[in-house]
Formats: sequence, C-alpha cells, structure tokens
Amino acid sequence: MSKRKFALGLDYGTESARALLVDVKTGEEISTAVADYPGGVMDKQLPDGTVLEPETALQDPNDYLSVLDKIIPAVMEDGGVTAQEIIGIGVDFTASTILPTLSDGTPLCILEDFKQEPYAWVKLWKDHAAQPEAEEMNDLAEKQGELFLARYGGRLSSEWMFPKSLRMLRKAPNVYERADRIIEAGDWLVWQLCGKEVRSACQAGYKGMWSKSEGFPSKEFLKLLDPQFESFVDEKLSKDIQPLGKAAGGLTPEWAQKIGLIPGTPVAVPVIDAHAAVLGTSVADAGKMVLALGTSTCHLVMNEKNLPARGVAGIVEDGIAPGFAAYESGQSAVGDIFLWFIRNYVNADIERQARLVGKDIFAYFEGLAANVPPGSNGLLALDWWNGNRSTLMDANLSGLIIGLTLSTRPEEIYRALIESTAFGTLAIIDNHSEQGIPIDELYASGGLAEKNELLLQIYSDVTGRTIKIAASTQAAALGAAIAGSVAAGAERDGYNTFKEATASMAHLKEKVFTPDAAKHQIYKRIYAEYIKLYDAFGRGMLDTMKQLKEIRDTVV
Amino acid sequence: MSKRKFALGLDYGTESARALLVDVKTGEEISTAVADYPGGVMDKQLPDGTVLEPETALQDPNDYLSVLDKIIPAVMEDGGVTAQEIIGIGVDFTASTILPTLSDGTPLCILEDFKQEPYAWVKLWKDHAAQPEAEEMNDLAEKQGELFLARYGGRLSSEWMFPKSLRMLRKAPNVYERADRIIEAGDWLVWQLCGKEVRSACQAGYKGMWSKSEGFPSKEFLKLLDPQFESFVDEKLSKDIQPLGKAAGGLTPEWAQKIGLIPGTPVAVPVIDAHAAVLGTSVADAGKMVLALGTSTCHLVMNEKNLPARGVAGIVEDGIAPGFAAYESGQSAVGDIFLWFIRNYVNADIERQARLVGKDIFAYFEGLAANVPPGSNGLLALDWWNGNRSTLMDANLSGLIIGLTLSTRPEEIYRALIESTAFGTLAIIDNHSEQGIPIDELYASGGLAEKNELLLQIYSDVTGRTIKIAASTQAAALGAAIAGSVAAGAERDGYNTFKEATASMAHLKEKVFTPDAAKHQIYKRIYAEYIKLYDAFGRGMLDTMKQLKEIRDTVV
Repeated sequence: MSKRKFALGLDYGTESARALLVDVKTGEEISTAVADYPGGVMDKQLPDGTVLEPETALQDPNDYLSVLDKIIPAVMEDGGVTAQEIIGIGVDFTASTILPTLSDGTPLCILEDFKQEPYAWVKLWKDHAAQPEAEEMNDLAEKQGELFLARYGGRLSSEWMFPKSLRMLRKAPNVYERADRIIEAGDWLVWQLCGKEVRSACQAGYKGMWSKSEGFPSKEFLKLLDPQFESFVDEKLSKDIQPLGKAAGGLTPEWAQKIGLIPGTPVAVPVIDAHAAVLGTSVADAGKMVLALGTSTCHLVMNEKNLPARGVAGIVEDGIAPGFAAYESGQSAVGDIFLWFIRNYVNADIERQARLVGKDIFAYFEGLAANVPPGSNGLLALDWWNGNRSTLMDANLSGLIIGLTLSTRPEEIYRALIESTAFGTLAIIDNHSEQGIPIDELYASGGLAEKNELLLQIYSDVTGRTIKIAASTQAAALGAAIAGSVAAGAERDGYNTFKEATASMAHLKEKVFTPDAAKHQIYKRIYAEYIKLYDAFGRGMLDTMKQLKEIRDTVV
Repeated sequence: MSKRKFALGLDYGTESARALLVDVKTGEEISTAVADYPGGVMDKQLPDGTVLEPETALQDPNDYLSVLDKIIPAVMEDGGVTAQEIIGIGVDFTASTILPTLSDGTPLCILEDFKQEPYAWVKLWKDHAAQPEAEEMNDLAEKQGELFLARYGGRLSSEWMFPKSLRMLRKAPNVYERADRIIEAGDWLVWQLCGKEVRSACQAGYKGMWSKSEGFPSKEFLKLLDPQFESFVDEKLSKDIQPLGKAAGGLTPEWAQKIGLIPGTPVAVPVIDAHAAVLGTSVADAGKMVLALGTSTCHLVMNEKNLPARGVAGIVEDGIAPGFAAYESGQSAVGDIFLWFIRNYVNADIERQARLVGKDIFAYFEGLAANVPPGSNGLLALDWWNGNRSTLMDANLSGLIIGLTLSTRPEEIYRALIESTAFGTLAIIDNHSEQGIPIDELYASGGLAEKNELLLQIYSDVTGRTIKIAASTQAAALGAAIAGSVAAGAERDGYNTFKEATASMAHLKEKVFTPDAAKHQIYKRIYAEYIKLYDAFGRGMLDTMKQLKEIRDTVV
C-alpha cells in the first residue's frame, strides 16, 4: 500500500479564509480550519477614518497572508499530517477582487504615502462604485461593435476589473499612476506564496475580459474610454495567463518556513470560488450543469464547443477544465429572496407554532410549503428581487407575484418564491439548450443544496432533470485542493487531468433527486406562464418595472 | 317653535338589524339599538340538521320580525320620544336577499312540509350557489343580444334574484311550484309591516333585472332558459314597482301595537343598504360619487342622463333619488385586502413595536405607511384579490404585486395595497367620465372612511379630487330614516324631495381631504403604469391569471 498523500485547499471568501486538507487518493476531508480576516470588510471608512464613497467595499491584503499561519498549521496538526505528505496547494478566491501593487507585489496601501487613499486598498467583488464606468464601457462597446461583448451576454458588470480600474484612473489618478500592477487578489496571493506573478485564465476570462483566442480588449477601445487608459493592459496586467491545473510555481522558502511546509511544494493557478465548487461537485466534463445554490445562484456548464451564446454572463475557453469552454450564468437573488420573506413576513402565530414543535422557522416553513401541491396555490412569481442576471442581464428588473387572493397563505407564497427560482434556472438551462449547449443533468452545491430538500425536489420536478448533490459541504475548498493535486501532477502522486482528479477526490451524496412525472407536467404548464411574463416584462413589452424605478429615483 | 318630529331608520345587515331615531329637522341622531338575528347565518345546515350545498347562505325570515320589538321600543325609550312624534319609517336591506312565500306573505319555510327544504328559506345576498345559472343566463343573454345586459355592464351576478330563482326551479321544483311569490326580504318586511305587497324600484332595478322603461326580461328569454321559467315574472313577482321616497303603505294596527307606534305611520319603499348610505352621506343629485368603503367598496353616482355605460355594474332609473339614473360600480375587495395582509404577514417584531407604543396593529401600520413618500417604494399592485367587479366584471382575475426588491419593507407593501385600491377607484371614475357621466367630488362613508385617514388622503391624492366624509357613522340607517321622512312628505312635517331631506338631515364632517398637487403628479405617473397592467391582464393580452386558476382547478 502506497503512503497516503494530501492536497491543501485554501478557500478565500468575503469574510474569512478556510483551509481544507484532503486525501488525494480518496478525497477524504481530513481536517479544516477557518479564520476571519482581522480587518473585515470596510464599507464606511478606512482604518485612519477616511470616509468611503457609497457602494464601496474594501479589504486589507495583509489579512489574506496573516490568516495563513493560523489555518495551515491548524489543519496539519488536526489531521496528523506531515509537510512531506502535502503534494500541492490550491487556492480559490472571490473575484473580481483587485488591488494595485508595485512591481514586486507590494500593495500600495501599505506605503505611507498611499494608506489614506481608498483606491490603494483591495476592492472587493461586491464593490459597485464603478457602475457608471461599467455603463460607459457597455455603451462604447456596443457602439463600436466590440466582439468581446458576445462572450459576456452583451453586458459588462461593475464588479469586474476593467470598470474598477478605469474608475481608479478617474478618481485616484495618483494611485493609478503609481501602480505597477493591478491584479486579482487570488493571483496576488499565489504570487506571494511562490514568488512569481502568473494570472489565472479563469479570473482573466470571467472578470478581465480576456480570451484565449482574442486576448484583452484592444488599445483603440481603451483609448476611446480615456487616452491614459490606452496602455492599461500593457502596463498594469501580465500576459502570462495560465489555465487551471497548472502550477504557478513552488512555495518559497520563506513561506514554507512560516507555515511549516516544504519549499517548492506546487501552488496551483487560482480559481474563482464558484468555479472551484464545480470541481468539488465532481464535474469535469460537458453536459452537466453545476448550481452553486446560495444567497444567489451561479450556474456553470462546460462544453467542447466555444459558442457565442446570448444571455450567458461569461464564456471562457479553459475557464475551468482545459479543453472545455465554460459557460457561466447566474440568478442574482435566490436564498436572499427566501430570507427576505422569512425575516419580514412571518407572523407571530407561525413563529409560535414553529417554537412549539421545536423547529427553526426555515425548516417549519419548508414543512408547510411541502404540503402545498404544485399548481394548487394559483400563484406565480418572477424571481427578479435583485434584477435578472441571466438571461436578461438587467439590474433594473424587479420581483413580481401574481395570482394573489384573499385565501393566499404565507406558505403558498413561500413555495411560489422557491418555484420562481426553479423556473429562473430552467430558463437558463433552456437558453443553453437552444444555442447548442445541451444540459443533461444537474449537480448542486452550496448552502441551499445541503439544507433544503424541498427546494431540490422542486428544482428536479420543474426542470424534469435529476439532481445530484456534492457530498462535500466545502465544495469550493475541495475544488481548490483538486486544483492543487492536478498542479502536482501524477509524478508527485497527484493527477494529470481534472477528470481523473475529480473522479477520485470529489463525491456525491447517495440521495439523488429525480423528477416526479406528474408534477413535471403541471410545472410545464405553469412554466409556460412564467415564460410569458418573463418575455413581457423582461423584453420590453411591458416596461413597468423600469418605469417604477425611474419614478422612485425622481422622488427619493 | 314647532314640535320636534322624528323618523325611524331600520338598517338590516347580514348579521343584525339596527334602529336609528333621527330628528327630522336637524338630522340629529337621537338614539340607536342593534339586535343580532337569533338564527344567524346558516351555511352548513338547517335547524333540523339538513346539510346545505356549498356556497349556500340562508336565514330565517322570522328573525327580521322578531328583532323589531326589541330595537324599536329601545330607541323610543332611550330617545324619550313618543309614538305621535314618529312621522315615518324607512328600511334598508341587503340585496339580493330573497325568499319564497304564499300569496299572503307566509314564508314557505315555516310550513311543516317545507321546513326541511333549504330552498324554502331566505337566500342571502352572499349565497353564490347559483353561479352556474348566472353563467347560463349570461351566455344566453349574450347569444340573444338581450338589451338588458347593457344596464349591467354585460354580466349578471350569481347573487341576483333571477339566477337564484332559476336554481330554485331546478334544484327544488316543489318549492318553486308552491311559491306564490318570490320576493326580496326588504320588500317582504315592508309587506309585513303595512300589509301591502310593493316592490322597490331600487331592488328590482339593481338585483331583479327590471327597468322603468323596459320592464323585466322577456318571456321568450325566460322560456329559452327553461320552459317552466317562462311565467316567472307573471306568477312570482309583482309589477307594482315603486321608486324610493314613496310610502309603500301605513303601519298595520297589529304591528303598531306590537312595537308601540301609531297605526298608519308611513312605511317607505325599502332601499338597498349601500344606496341608503348615499342619502346618509347627503348626496341626492348628480356629479357626486359616494364610496361606501368597507371590506369591499360600492361606488354610486347619479346623473340626469340614463346612458348605457360599459363596465358599470348596474344602471337604474330612479334607483336612488327619483329623476336620476343611479350608476353602481364596485371593487370586490378593499378592506379585505388590508385585513388579509395584516392578519397573515405582520411579523412578530412589528407586533411587539405596536404593543410597545400602545397602538393597535392597523393604526401602527398606518403610521409606518404614512411615512413612505408616494412613488418611493417602487411598488405597484393590481387590487384584484377577489376579482374585478368594475370595470371588468371578471371574478377570475387575481391580485398582483410588482416592483419587489430585497429591500422592500412590509409597510411599503401595505401602502402599495392601499394605493392599488385608490387606483381601482380612479379607474372606475375615469370609466364614468369617458362615457359622459362626470364626477366632480367624492364622498365617503363606511368603516374605512371613519377610521383610516391615510387611506382617504391617498384616495384624494390619487384621484385629484376632494373627499367629504359622512358625519354619521350609520349612513345607511340614516339614509333609511331620510327615506321615511320623504315617505311621510311635507304635509306630515317630512319632506317632498330627497334633495330637501338630505340637505337638512344628512351632514358631513368638517374635515375635508384635498389633493396635494405634487403627490397627485407622482400618482399620475404611477397610475399610467397601473392602467397598462390593468389593460394587459384585464383585457386578454396576458391571460396569466386565468391560466393559473385553470391549472389550480385541475389539481385541487
């Protein structure tokens, strides 16, 4: 019997980082440890009291480093694993989370001259201050007929690297000028660990408007945005863009000593968190859509063909597993809608009943909603509480409930809300199928996939497809560890391909959700109504949602 | 100074009857007394245990009589008024509330042979069992091009006398055959009091498909429904149909003795309750719409012209004051929608806060909703929780809320619900105006008009019209007393016209609600969106509401 070997997955979320130690042969999760970032998220002011503009969310890059000597020694000790047994390290990170640095990787925010400058700090993915710049880029790209738009469903997001960088140039030109690099935090972290600047194709593709065949947007386009922005790609980015599964480099002696590992241990090119979860859900080939079900939902599917698909938020060649184009869609609110309802609209009676039977209110409501037969509530909702990310890419849409009567019960509304998110997912699936990207099976990971069986059964009944569930409750961290084992390669007891790695390391729960044929037939009829409303309100026939937001904007 | 004189208003509701003693000169309300009907509403079984069919609501006609010797002596004694000082009696009653009787007025349900027959009892207005017969009549009337349809906005209701009687013929032919008369309970009560069968033009017009110029539906039409129904009008109804303000007759000696009044005291032709409230709100001429604001809303307006107006639920010449055609519209749920929300969707936190400040939850919520500026919530609702009575006459429509976001607050939804009922009223107003029946001012009575200042202000801001409020909290009973004083006439110290009577006897509150010009401008923009949705969902462009109900009906 060969000696056991382990991969280390590092999962960088918005509030905390997690380490997960995984057996490379079996995928067994040996031990895990989490640490909050000491500085948290700054959305009101900097540490020195400098007030931030609205929609801002910043972070201290040192926090990403300072957690490492807590969580890595912790999992090593807990797991009883030695440094020699670690074959590779993988990292997943939120994106687009960017920072400006000097040419050696020093973050500008640690320089005395810049620490009072908000734009010198890490700008988190959820920082939406660059909305005007995103709109400016969208308008110009449309006018110029830029081909890259087709890879992003026709719209760029304010969360991405280019709008954020353009805003930095406009609002803090001194920061922009001093920055030798502007870089994704995931890439920066890997740079720190192995002393080599490499950019992840996954991050560059989904958040940096880069494609393997077409590269970055042209200088001409950037110049039209701003003459000074013309040289952005050449001066601030790197063209050394590597697909997932590659090693960016080996662990430096300094870091190896600090965290108790062996120098030279391979560190993988970083992965966006949702994309890592795909690997952690055992998917590494075509036709299988992975739903990362949480406050919002991310839908990822791979296909050998790289097609320009309308209404898909991002299409990246080699975006997850090399050899496949990875298609990303999203629903901008899912669990958030349920939370909105439960927090605000649960009456005291229902609360009392839940307490009486000793259930938390979500579980109690799930029980009530499970007893509402499909179609019997006469309700239908459009799940656009936070706009529609896919397939319409329109943040100005809003939620709708139709079919309300005097006998409508809270649990009926709750079920209709769950159903509406299932219909939204089916609309995304159909959008792929219609454009030649078939989806045969669904896979799910994330908080809702773990806890909410009613939701999974409804998704199966609505879509008419089986749903398999990630066995791991840390699918992203597991995906990072898988990337680490592929970066190590077979010669170091890892794997040469994601297909082999996921086959051994990622597992599914035994319970598979399969569609009930009779319920699927009922849902087909309701879905036809959903699509009529979807098209009527989403494609301009009735512009009520936008008019109401316009009126709101004139009065508040 | 002449001696004081009084009129007696008898207000027959669904659960109880009220007597109101009113000073004929000043309208001062001297005393009032209420008594519940001993038998209540029977909707499950008869007194002997006979089980009732669904949608049934019955009553014992004796209850209408047995309350009289409680409430009339009570108000006389409380008011310190003598029998000689009572110049007239008026009655208002729910309609269409009908019963079968012998030719002398004896209700069939008191006969030994019939008391186990549900159809022998009083069928209340809210008995909806005759829905199939109503639909049958609508289909036939449409096919035959019957002109009477135009007076009822194109649709007859299952609540009305003809569908109820046709169902009696079908379901209980022995009752139908034995019935010498089928009569409105209000007419029957007045018949008992003065010994003379007279039918009210108000009840016959709104609920009996009768018109002053065209009479009842033709024999040919009735025969096509059922050969036995051909002679319904000739055999079961009376053609002695009298306008409001007439005396049906004088109090019989027997009843005079029983209730302590003078024989021969004039008893007025009965009025439908909502129509009596118009008089009690001081309105007796054209251009003024009275809103009876309660669980549902009834809209009544008079005009010299008798026009066939689309989307108006009932148009009756002399329907309220002689010389005017009275137009009735309605919203089938108003207060009921607010109640639905408050009962089901108020969370425990809000409940606690209300308790903390010592307010009931309606008042507390009203306070929160009052602080939401018009348009700022970005919400819009279609107020069709119980279908749309006017202007669409479609019970299969349902409620809709649009503009929901993750930050939508309960009080914003509550305000949007109030606003939606205001928009519904404006749609009814506009429907009149467009067809040559102008509406200059609004008047309001009923529970919501008394209590809900926020609602009244919103209605004023939305409609851009002033709203005056009935001073009386018993506008229907006061209207009945006014009818009694007109039945008495000037020669008995009453009045010859409703105009004179209401001018003296009906009063308005000092507080008048006037529209805020800036808010009205905002509401105009939102109303334009409301009308777009109204037309889209109400006129067939999007039949989602009906499809959802069809799906519901196939699964439950």
